[in-house]
Formats: sequence, structure tokens, C-alpha cells
Amino acid sequence: MPSVLGNKIKISVFGESHGAAIGCVIDGLPAGIRLDMDKIYKEMARRAPGKDKTSTTRKESDTPNLLSGVLNGTTTGAPLAMIIENTNTRSGDYGNLMTVPRPGHSDYPAYVKYQGNNDIRGGGHFSGRLTAPIVFAGAVAKQILEEKGIKIGSHISKIAGVCDDCFDKNNISSELLEQLSNASFSVINSETEAGMREAVEHARLKGNSVGGVIECAAIGLPVGIGGNIFDTVESRLSAALFGVPAVKGVQFGAGFDFADMLGSEANDGYEIKNGSVHLLSNNNGGIIGGMTSGAPIVFSVVVKPTPSISVEQQSVNLQTMENAPLIVKGRHDPCIVPRAVPVIEAVTAVVLLDLMM
Amino acid sequence: MPSVLGNKIKISVFGESHGAAIGCVIDGLPAGIRLDMDKIYKEMARRAPGKDKTSTTRKESDTPNLLSGVLNGTTTGAPLAMIIENTNTRSGDYGNLMTVPRPGHSDYPAYVKYQGNNDIRGGGHFSGRLTAPIVFAGAVAKQILEEKGIKIGSHISKIAGVCDDCFDKNNISSELLEQLSNASFSVINSETEAGMREAVEHARLKGNSVGGVIECAAIGLPVGIGGNIFDTVESRLSAALFGVPAVKGVQFGAGFDFADMLGSEANDGYEIKNGSVHLLSNNNGGIIGGMTSGAPIVFSVVVKPTPSISVEQQSVNLQTMENAPLIVKGRHDPCIVPRAVPVIEAVTAVVLLDLMM
Amino acid sequence: MPSVLGNKIKISVFGESHGAAIGCVIDGLPAGIRLDMDKIYKEMARRAPGKDKTSTTRKESDTPNLLSGVLNGTTTGAPLAMIIENTNTRSGDYGNLMTVPRPGHSDYPAYVKYQGNNDIRGGGHFSGRLTAPIVFAGAVAKQILEEKGIKIGSHISKIAGVCDDCFDKNNISSELLEQLSNASFSVINSETEAGMREAVEHARLKGNSVGGVIECAAIGLPVGIGGNIFDTVESRLSAALFGVPAVKGVQFGAGFDFADMLGSEANDGYEIKNGSVHLLSNNNGGIIGGMTSGAPIVFSVVVKPTPSISVEQQSVNLQTMENAPLIVKGRHDPCIVPRAVPVIEAVTAVVLLDLMM
Amino acid sequence: MPSVLGNKIKISVFGESHGAAIGCVIDGLPAGIRLDMDKIYKEMARRAPGKDKTSTTRKESDTPNLLSGVLNGTTTGAPLAMIIENTNTRSGDYGNLMTVPRPGHSDYPAYVKYQGNNDIRGGGHFSGRLTAPIVFAGAVAKQILEEKGIKIGSHISKIAGVCDDCFDKNNISSELLEQLSNASFSVINSETEAGMREAVEHARLKGNSVGGVIECAAIGLPVGIGGNIFDTVESRLSAALFGVPAVKGVQFGAGFDFADMLGSEANDGYEIKNGSVHLLSNNNGGIIGGMTSGAPIVFSVVVKPTPSISVEQQSVNLQTMENAPLIVKGRHDPCIVPRAVPVIEAVTAVVLLDLMM
Repeated sequence: MPSVLGNKIKISVFGESHGAAIGCVIDGLPAGIRLDMDKIYKEMARRAPGKDKTSTTRKESDTPNLLSGVLNGTTTGAPLAMIIENTNTRSGDYGNLMTVPRPGHSDYPAYVKYQGNNDIRGGGHFSGRLTAPIVFAGAVAKQILEEKGIKIGSHISKIAGVCDDCFDKNNISSELLEQLSNASFSVINSETEAGMREAVEHARLKGNSVGGVIECAAIGLPVGIGGNIFDTVESRLSAALFGVPAVKGVQFGAGFDFADMLGSEANDGYEIKNGSVHLLSNNNGGIIGGMTSGAPIVFSVVVKPTPSISVEQQSVNLQTMENAPLIVKGRHDPCIVPRAVPVIEAVTAVVLLDLMM
Repeated sequence: MPSVLGNKIKISVFGESHGAAIGCVIDGLPAGIRLDMDKIYKEMARRAPGKDKTSTTRKESDTPNLLSGVLNGTTTGAPLAMIIENTNTRSGDYGNLMTVPRPGHSDYPAYVKYQGNNDIRGGGHFSGRLTAPIVFAGAVAKQILEEKGIKIGSHISKIAGVCDDCFDKNNISSELLEQLSNASFSVINSETEAGMREAVEHARLKGNSVGGVIECAAIGLPVGIGGNIFDTVESRLSAALFGVPAVKGVQFGAGFDFADMLGSEANDGYEIKNGSVHLLSNNNGGIIGGMTSGAPIVFSVVVKPTPSISVEQQSVNLQTMENAPLIVKGRHDPCIVPRAVPVIEAVTAVVLLDLMM
Repeated sequence: MPSVLGNKIKISVFGESHGAAIGCVIDGLPAGIRLDMDKIYKEMARRAPGKDKTSTTRKESDTPNLLSGVLNGTTTGAPLAMIIENTNTRSGDYGNLMTVPRPGHSDYPAYVKYQGNNDIRGGGHFSGRLTAPIVFAGAVAKQILEEKGIKIGSHISKIAGVCDDCFDKNNISSELLEQLSNASFSVINSETEAGMREAVEHARLKGNSVGGVIECAAIGLPVGIGGNIFDTVESRLSAALFGVPAVKGVQFGAGFDFADMLGSEANDGYEIKNGSVHLLSNNNGGIIGGMTSGAPIVFSVVVKPTPSISVEQQSVNLQTMENAPLIVKGRHDPCIVPRAVPVIEAVTAVVLLDLMM
Repeated sequence: MPSVLGNKIKISVFGESHGAAIGCVIDGLPAGIRLDMDKIYKEMARRAPGKDKTSTTRKESDTPNLLSGVLNGTTTGAPLAMIIENTNTRSGDYGNLMTVPRPGHSDYPAYVKYQGNNDIRGGGHFSGRLTAPIVFAGAVAKQILEEKGIKIGSHISKIAGVCDDCFDKNNISSELLEQLSNASFSVINSETEAGMREAVEHARLKGNSVGGVIECAAIGLPVGIGGNIFDTVESRLSAALFGVPAVKGVQFGAGFDFADMLGSEANDGYEIKNGSVHLLSNNNGGIIGGMTSGAPIVFSVVVKPTPSISVEQQSVNLQTMENAPLIVKGRHDPCIVPRAVPVIEAVTAVVLLDLMM
């Protein structure tokens, strides 16, 4: 049942959506890292709701409060604990959900698993709100990675069937990743933003929601990182990515398109370029045999439509064991994809840092 | 760098393709399990090569030799060690690969990671041959799961663009899974087999290879198995599935199709049926909030085309650091997908058993 | 570098003596446990300083603040996070210690390990103050264990050479353990208390300190708990016990006295008593072959004298690399043994609960 | 229930005393280590029985057979698997033990734990014979440590009440450790050997057995190795040491003598010597605050008398549930201490290497 991620750097996430606080403990950070709090706040702001119509109108106070592990702005080597107090929660909205599980949410299996003791308000520990401490941890990891020359970035590859351009997998610049990080709506081809927003707004007006795909890249990793058989880079990344609520698929490089390719098309050849080994293509998404190949790591994840919708749905009352139609009240994101972008980057940063230690 | 899988049941896999032996240690098995060796041999035979033209003509002797943990056919509770001696290896075929890495294989990153000390013959520890002990471990896990009423099965969903029918995700019978296990070429719609075989044969004649998709299902799991945040059923399964060589994508339920769906289409509603909770659909692939929902677990993985092809490819000589065209000799599978089917089931069985303990 | 304990129940401890807060996250607790906060406060009060002359006159505010994992007094199954805010710290007392390491303390190796970035005030993360969240976690574990009929208790077996009676290892009553828990100074033979207190006071008046031995017992465990080879009950308990600051030795049952015994004296024979297997003696301290034998678990730990003393000591200045005599100022315990009693019980409870899950 | 040791280097031990083979898998070894098999055989010979009257007259064939992870005598970076085939086992001697547990052995708790399915012949997986693969793994670890300038050695500190001299804890030479390794009976003061042997022989003639203490040292470790709170060097070492059969106590430095010392006596002061920090004494056994201090690591373990004795003992028949006097037949060590010396060094080497990675 652990909410703990990592081997050499362990991140323990805690909290419930409507509890006193959420937070995390990061264990194993090197000492002497000067934290750039502005960069951390910026990452957390990217995830925060209420920026525009694609997200919920809830205001979450996401100010991280450092309890330990940092002295005069520098890591001490002891576990870094951080909490975010929960404010502005309207628990009343969730009253009837205690016994009528919301379709697509953790409510029903959690009710069975915890025999009804779990905090269902706002999804409890399963809430997307728990991604705030993950983004915090990711922001710390990103800083350490950037000192090692490793940069992570991502873009909205698809929303509701509307597609952005894809990364040029074998040629991704630090500038592009930086630019995507600074955008309020991260797409490579800016002409695609309008169509995506339109699809989201269309769903929002009907009380419905839409899903999408996020493509993420990491550049600057040395060759040969990652392990054998059950400890591949893909294993480690996917395990963390599937920890992000609503992620239902992960593919590396050409991913599911490999099923339509010949080996001669799929293989990434090698050449000598400027005295070092260079890949001629990057269908493997920077990971071959479970290890980094030197090409950019490129993968995409699918994010399912936000399960909280205002449309009436069929559910059941778990106490009376009768059918119970349900309309989910409260404020919800019609599309979680834009806010999920920094979360995907965060777990990627945490995993890659762990692999680099 | 661990080749170890699992928490409560730990499986440690060892060996190199052309070394003395490959094998595994299974630590944490319950005592008193009577092993049905015939079922184990049957699973291993499903993975073994040389059955037909889709696979290599190599004959591998896959007889598992139990060293410990079993007394009079019953598990003792001590670690179960098993080895398979390597025979029929023709190392001569791999001579020039020591310095010229095969595209798509682990050769290059492994060379860098291990500073050239790794055993490159046949892919060494990264060889698909290492899936034999995994299938053994999976066969043991399957027996224990079946006693708990849990059954796993899978089919070739696609090869080289030719598609089989999909599982009816919310309605998968034990009989169908059994039938797929007994088939020499596992497809739901038998009419699709010919087209797939034809595509493989077409590639084989040209010294090329093709990839595909495997769809896997597990039925009979109780509701609420799986953990929080970073320990979801998806996390655990994907980490193990990406340990299978050539797997480059994993998706659960509707997977990447979620990107084109509305929340109202994607959510799986509930109803009371025969006095218990039943799902109206299974787009989430039996896993909601990272926990089992009671519906069948359904996921698919993409398997890239076998990287070993006889077509000339561009590579480099890692010692002279010059470009070096390469033709991979030896006996290879033009399509690894059929042989990967029992491997995917095996890692699934191992992970589900670990989650059930 | 992890501050994480346990397998199925993971306890992550964080904080620094003079930082904002200390605390812990308990991951993996079963849902539905009603926490008896009075019992928790009582355990924490047993550890708290300032009760009498054996301990420091510092007042620590040890009020645990539950942030998550508990709803209406009952565990939810999500990680339980707890913090204790640090107050009443007088950091000024520690100024010169930043460069002159206190003998017997973590200062010097920590300085090297963390390149001088660690928080040295009050010992930082290595402070005995970090045992407060451990006692909290232990109090929670004790409640769950008591519901399973398992009870833990301990006594001061020796202070400064003055000995208490030993447990009758094969016959320890729940009443005795309860009585020891309620005592402000836990000894079996109340006549030994005066001599111990006198020795402590004698050291205190000279600015010196003394060590001692704590004997701990756990009754009610079923037979056969614990694992193979590297996962023995002794392994698990000792790993946790050596995490308690100042513990330098752990022995089970007859412990070091085994070196003077014959096999015929050391072996614990069996008899049938009231229809079940009973041990005739308990030299093995309730653990045979690494597993519980059904007899009480009995072990003792040695606690070294508090390293903080007011006597002048030889040390060095790590910046000037010159010898530097040192007198440690501040308020210190002349004997930490009485306050260590509930800490030893707490880690024992946490480990036994983890083994029982 | 795991028989797995280590974090970065994982050692999985398998086998049963009278099964087909025993062995281990070492996962995580660096690539490119040239194994000195002579040194490995020498270590295994130190543990092997039959050398003299202190040990059993059984001849065990301890030839390690490398299955994987080594190519042309050099580690490949893949898991190293090694097996030792079991020969010369006389299972007949153990017939009646299946239902009458031997006092002091794992038999009774193992019977309960495994519901009678465990292999009881020779102790099964709990047999001291399982220390052979541990010594193998330790010999590999020692080689890697020696290249880093770290040396481990130990001596018999006490047998049956007869004491050897102790290590001069703050001044242990590589030469002394080497000399102890080469001795057939490792004592510092050679005059003590005769008395120890006499005590063993005395017990042997009476069909009885004796215990003892082993003191172990490791020199050459850098300062600051080891972790926080629950990951101290003492935690890691003790967890592994208590995995060695018959070890019932572990103490570091002054150990239980700390209970009689003043803080001013116990603390190890510092001085500058030749420009670097030097400890004035080493009561802490080279570990302060859970981290290495730069002084030699020094600890001792107590080994209980061999439980297998020919003297009649009281036991029970677990099937009829009646009292059953027992005389253990077979060939046994009257004192296991000399053979345990290389085992203690081996687990120390494995743990220290893991901490150094």
C-alpha cells in the first residue's frame, strides 16, 4: 500500500484532499544543494488550478512549507519534509458521495479496500491534489538534474482528438524544452492551441470532460543508465507515471506504432559523428535494452477524461445496495491535461534523479 | 542494476544466453504448494523456439532443473532455485558483434555501462532467452493463482498491422482464456491467423522482422487489490512488463483511445446485479484509482520488431570508432510476438500473485 | 541514507532538533483502527524530558499534530503524517560546535558526510529528539498489537553498574509489563531504583554522564513469525534497535552468556503442557532459527553514556585543523536510559507489527 | 520470508542442506572485476568442516560452480549465480526428526510456519551449510574491498569461557588481519589456543558442545559511510550478522561495557595528527552517529553452543503431541565458533561493500 517512490532517493507522499495538510518527505537528497525557491514556486504554479477555463475554478493555496532538511536555503542531507496546508475546501459538496461511488474515481475500490474508512472527500488520498507535493519534489529533482546538464520538458500532444506536432525525437533542443516550460499552455505548434481549447470549452459547457496525450522528453543523460531486466528505465518511469491519477497508457519512442513497422524501419542505426557515437534515428525513445542510448528519452502518456462530470451517471448506493443515479457537484476540471503536464515532468525528474544517483 | 522482481515474492533471474546456465530463485513462495510439473512444462513449451516458421530454428533445451525449495513435489517455503543448462549455442556466429553493436539491441548501451565486460554473445543477460526462467516462475504463480480462482490469458492482438478481434473487456470467460492457452497461435478470431502468418513469412523471406501487440486479461481478482499513488496495479504490472525485452508500450483498458473520448463515454458506471456491484463497462481495464475494480484486468503491450535482421544496417566499430555496416548472422525470430505471449502472461501472474500475498 | 523503517508498514522519520518541526509518516497502516490518543500521549510523556533529575531540564513540547491518515479518530488506510513543532530551542548554546565536533556525537562523521551542510544544532537529524516521532509510531503500533494479544514492556536492567533483577525469561506476565509501563522509573525490583538514581546524580553533579542496559520483552506472539536467513526476527529487531541513538549492543535471550554455556545447558527443551507445545526454558529469548518460538521475546540493549558532558574534552577545529579543547554547554541528560525505555519499546512494537502484517 | 541481503548489491541465498544444491545469486556487482578464484577457494576452505576435532567429520564438497555473471574470469555486470552441489549427505540419520524437533534448532518454529512442509533433513534451508554460499559472496566482496584499501579480519575472542586477547581497537594493522586470515585457528594470543581446544575436546567427548565469541575488525573505511536513523552501519551489520545461524548477540566497540562507564571515559576525543583528524580512543568501535568515524570498525558477536548434541534432551512428538526424549544422531561440530569466523567476515564484507557502492 506504499505511497513511497524511489530507491536511493525515496519520496513519501501523504495527505488527503480535505484533510489538514498534504505534503511529502524526500529522503536521500544530497547535502549542499541550494534550492531555488522561485523555480519551485513556478513549477507549482504550472500545476495550480484556476488559471483559465480548462481548469477548475477552485483556488488551492499551494504554498510549500519546509519543515526540515533545509538550512539557510541549502539541503542538509537529512530528510526534507514539506507540507501544504489545505484551505478553501468545501466538503459539503461531497456529502452524498460517501455511499454512492463516482464512476471512474477510486471511490468504489477504495471503499471495499478500506472497508469504508477512507476519506472520500475530494477523493481523499487518491485526489489529484496529491500531485502538488509530487510537483514540489520534481522541482527539487529538476534543479539537481539541470546542474548535471539534464533537462526535461513536455507538451500537450493531443486533447480530445486535436493533435499538436510531435517531438523530432532525435533532435530536441534545450531551448524548445525551456520554451514549453514557460508557456501557459504547452504546445509545439501554437496553431493547435485554439482547437484544443475549443474542444475543452465545448465539453465544459455540457458538464462533460475530455482526455488527451502528453509527450515528454529528457535530454542530456549519459549512455548506459538503467538496469537489467526488471529495472529498466522504462520500468522505473512507467511505474511512477502510472502513479499519476488518470494516466492509463505509457509508450516509449514509436510506442504502439512499432506494431506496424518492419525491423529495418524500427532499428535505430549508429554512425560516428564528431568522433562519438550518434544514433541515426530514435524510434526506441532513447532507451535500448532498458538503458539510455544517448538519444533523448521520449515517451508519451495518455490521460483519461476527468471522471468528475456534471452529466447524470449510473451508480449504486453501497449501503442500500440499490441503483442510484448520480450527478457529481462541485468544481471540476473539464480537462486535466494541461495541469498534468508539470506532474508528468515531475515524476520523470524524480525517477531520472534516482537513476542517476 | 537489479534483476529482482517483487515485494513479498521476490524473483531473482540470472544467466547469460551463452553462459553455463540460466535460472531463477523464487523467494517467498508459500509452503505446501504441490507443483504440477506438466503445467509448468506446457508453459515453457509455449515459449520455446522452433515450433514453426514465425520463430528461430534454434532448439533450446528448456528443461528446468529444481535445485531447492521443493521436496517430494511440494514447496518447502524455502527459496525455490531452478536452472536450465545452456546447450546448442553457436557462439561463433556472434564474433564480430563484440565491437560492432547491433541496432535495436542492448549492445551499445551495455558496452558503455559495463565498459565492454558484458557477455555480448546472444545478447548475454539481456537475451530473450532469459524469459525462460520468467515463464517458469509465471507457471508456478499461475498454479497458485488458479487455486484462488484467478485466471490469466492473452492473445495476439496485432502482427504487422493485421488485427485480431479485441477482448470484450467486461465479459471474458475462463473458457476463452483456457482455449487461448492451448492454441499454438493464440488469436480470438481464427480467421486472422493466416494474414498474420503471411506477414511474418513475407518479412522472413526478406531477412526482415515485424512487431505486434498482445492483449492480456486476468479474471477473478477481488475488488480493492493494489495500492496508493506509486504502488498502483498499473505501476506494478507496467514495471514488470517493461522488463520483457522488446516491450515498448503498455496501456490499460481503452488506453490511448481515452484521448478521443468524453468523460461520459469513458466512465464505467455501476449497477446492482444479483445483489452485488457490477460495472456497466470496463474502459478502465479493471483498474480504477490504481486498485482492482472487480471487472477483468485488461491491458495490451506493444512488442517491437525483432532487432536481429539479416538486412544490412548502419553501425559503428566501438574500438576503431569508424562507421561499420553490419549484417547480423545467426538464427533469429522474424516475429517474436507469438513466443512473447506466455512471457507476458508469466510476468502478469508473478505480479498479481505478489499483490495477492 | 534512508530514515525509513519497515517493509509492509513503512515509517519515514524527518526533522532536525532545532528545525521547524519533526515528525513521521506511517505508510501501510490498516484502515479502521481507532486511535486511543490518551495512550499515545502517555507513551510520549514517558519519553519527554524534564520529569526528574535524571533528564535534561529542557521542556520539549511534544504535542503530535495529525495531518493525514486519520478521520474522526480512525485510520483511513492512507499514510498517517504527524508533526511536532519545535519550540523552546536555544540555538545560541550550540554556536561553536559548528566547527568543533563533540566527542561521541555524530558531529564529525556527519560533517564529513554532508560536507558541512548538515544542521548541527542540537545534533540536527541525529538528535535524540527524533525519537519522539518514533515513540508516536510505536504507540500506534502497540495499540494494534494489543488487539492481537501482543504486549511489550521493558525495564532498566542496569545503570552505571547498578543492576535490577532480570526478567524470568520463560514466564513474563502481562501484568508485570503493564506495571513497568506505568512506572515513572521502570525497574522490576523497586529496591534498585535508589542506587541507580544515586549513581546518576553523582555523575550529574560532576557534569558527567552514565550509561546502562534496558531489557525488553514481548509476549503473545504466535509461533513461526519471522523469516529465513537474512530476515530473522533478530535481524529485524536489531536493525531497528541500532537506529536508536546511543544503542551499541543487542543480545537475545542468554546473549553473551552463551559463550560460557554447554549445549546441554543452552538448548531449550520442549514438553507438552495442557495439550500444546511448551518450552522448558528460554535461553534463546523467544527466537529460534530466526523465528518466534512461542516463548516470550526477550532481549537487552546497552545504551552508552550521554556523550554531551560538561567536562572538558579534547577535540579539534575542523576549519583551522588545530586541536581545540571543548566544553559542551547546554542542558543535557546525565543519563538517557530512563527516557530510552519507551523508545526501545516503540521500535520493538513497530518491527513486530511489521512482521505480523 | 526473504533470504535476500543488501540494497545496491543483493545476495539471494538458496538451497537446503540435503537438497540437490545450495548457492547464491549476487546481483549488482560492478563489471570488470577479475575474480581471484584461489582467494575464494581459500575462504571457503576456512569454513569447510573436517579440518580438525573442533568440527564435524562430515566432508562437504564445497566446490563453487559459476553459472553466470563471469566471463573469462571477469565479472560481466550481470547477476553472478553460483551453485555447490550437495554430496555426501546421509539423510537416514535424520529420519525421526521429522516429528520430534531438536531443541535449539529451527525445527519446531519451522514446522509451525511451514505446516510441516519444510525440508527438515540437516536443518533444510536453516542449515549452517547455507553459510557456504555466503562465504563465497563474502570472498568476492573482500576482493573488491581490498582494491579500495579495506581489509577485514577476525579472531576467536572466547570459547567456553577461555579468552583470547582483544583487538587494540584504535590500532589494528593490516598485517595482523592477514595473519589471522591465514591461521587455521584464529587467535591473537597463540597461547590461548590450547585452552580453547581442550574445552572443545572435553565437550566433544561428552557428546556436548560449547559456544564462544568472535571479534571482527574492518580497517580502511573512509569517514562518513552509513546513513541516518534506521540505516546506521550498526543496523546494517547487525541485521546481516543475526542472519548467521547461532549468533545471539552483537556489540560494537565497548559494547555492553558501556553500561559501567562514565561519559568522560566513553567518549572518543579527537586530535590533529599529521594534518588530519585522528581519534584518541575507539570505544565506539569505529561507528559514531551510525556513520564510520575513520577508526577501525570493531564489533563482537556471540555464537551459541551447537544445538546438535548427543546428550539426551527433552522434546515432543509434534504428531502424537506426547513428550519424546531425543538423542540427536549424525556428525556434528562440538564447537562451531572456528568455522563461523570466515562467515562473520563474509557477511561483514558483503554489508560494507553494499554501503560503499
